[in-house]
Amino acid sequence: MLSAMNTTSELTITLPDWLNERLTAPIQIQGDEARMRFVIELARENIVHRTGGPFAAAVFRSGNGMLMSAGVNSVTRLNNAMLHAEVVALMFAQARVGSYTLRTADASYDLVTSCEPCAMCLGAILWSGVRRLVCGATRDDAERVGFDEGPVFPESYAYLERRGITVVRQVLRAEAADVLDHYLRGGGVVYNG
Amino acid sequence: MLSAMNTTSELTITLPDWLNERLTAPIQIQGDEARMRFVIELARENIVHRTGGPFAAAVFRSGNGMLMSAGVNSVTRLNNAMLHAEVVALMFAQARVGSYTLRTADASYDLVTSCEPCAMCLGAILWSGVRRLVCGATRDDAERVGFDEGPVFPESYAYLERRGITVVRQVLRAEAADVLDHYLRGGGVVYNG
Repeated sequence: MLSAMNTTSELTITLPDWLNERLTAPIQIQGDEARMRFVIELARENIVHRTGGPFAAAVFRSGNGMLMSAGVNSVTRLNNAMLHAEVVALMFAQARVGSYTLRTADASYDLVTSCEPCAMCLGAILWSGVRRLVCGATRDDAERVGFDEGPVFPESYAYLERRGITVVRQVLRAEAADVLDHYLRGGGVVYNG
Repeated sequence: MLSAMNTTSELTITLPDWLNERLTAPIQIQGDEARMRFVIELARENIVHRTGGPFAAAVFRSGNGMLMSAGVNSVTRLNNAMLHAEVVALMFAQARVGSYTLRTADASYDLVTSCEPCAMCLGAILWSGVRRLVCGATRDDAERVGFDEGPVFPESYAYLERRGITVVRQVLRAEAADVLDHYLRGGGVVYNG
């Protein structure tokens, strides 16, 4: 929709078709490694389908492992620099629970991401209300491929922890980093490099 | 749209009606103070119309001062913790130029925000491609009202500057901070406090 001044008056954020197809049946996964394996597979598929950067993330209900949402990097597909995998997953999870916070009385949620978050996503995680953050590849792995992670410092993680977010890092790191290398070898676009 | 697993398959991000009405004719504003005055007025209107937190931002084309997009905090209105004013303005600006970066060969863009960015927005600004960041109220002003700004450090701003983003702070700070105080006095919701 275009108004008289040629501005867009609404934005629509979609998932790629292949991901919507993956999500047609309920998914329940217990354990950080199994959840990470699922997320790494989505990152790999995002490369294969050429629907964005080599990153994926998902929100799980902490106790029973129900998948609440999944996101893949959609920067190039949707021409939107903010649509990193974590932001996409968190937005869809909040839409599903119908609240601007996942910190609810009756459930808690984990964000599982194939790579340690950039500065923007780390902030988004803080505001999202998730209780746990589980990361695969490291900042160094991402930067080796050419992706900038921005101003994230040890104090940034300490800030999350002080706000009650448990951080678990380097879960299946080698497998997660391999996806990044695969993207580089395939000549994938490194935006914001 | 709901799929079989009860996930939302697309998200729509809108501006409040009052803001769309403000944007029906082209707007051109020269000078940081005049642009800040425009943004502060939007933050104030966002309180009056009860469409979100007391924050607004806008993207201007650097040279001629054409308004590319405007955003207001939409966290509570759209149940989405990521929709801070800066993120909304940057997403709409990128939609308008049709690119995931505002760092183009033929134009450069400024983001003017009524308050210094939180950790998430600071990262988003880095990825957006804007060349200048102009801020009104300070982190201290926001925190005095109860809003957390997250892990933003002096090094975070230094990181932006090293990436070629000029940062201008405390433009009409008193007027910008007054909007925050007005929100507090009016009993506005302080989410993520």
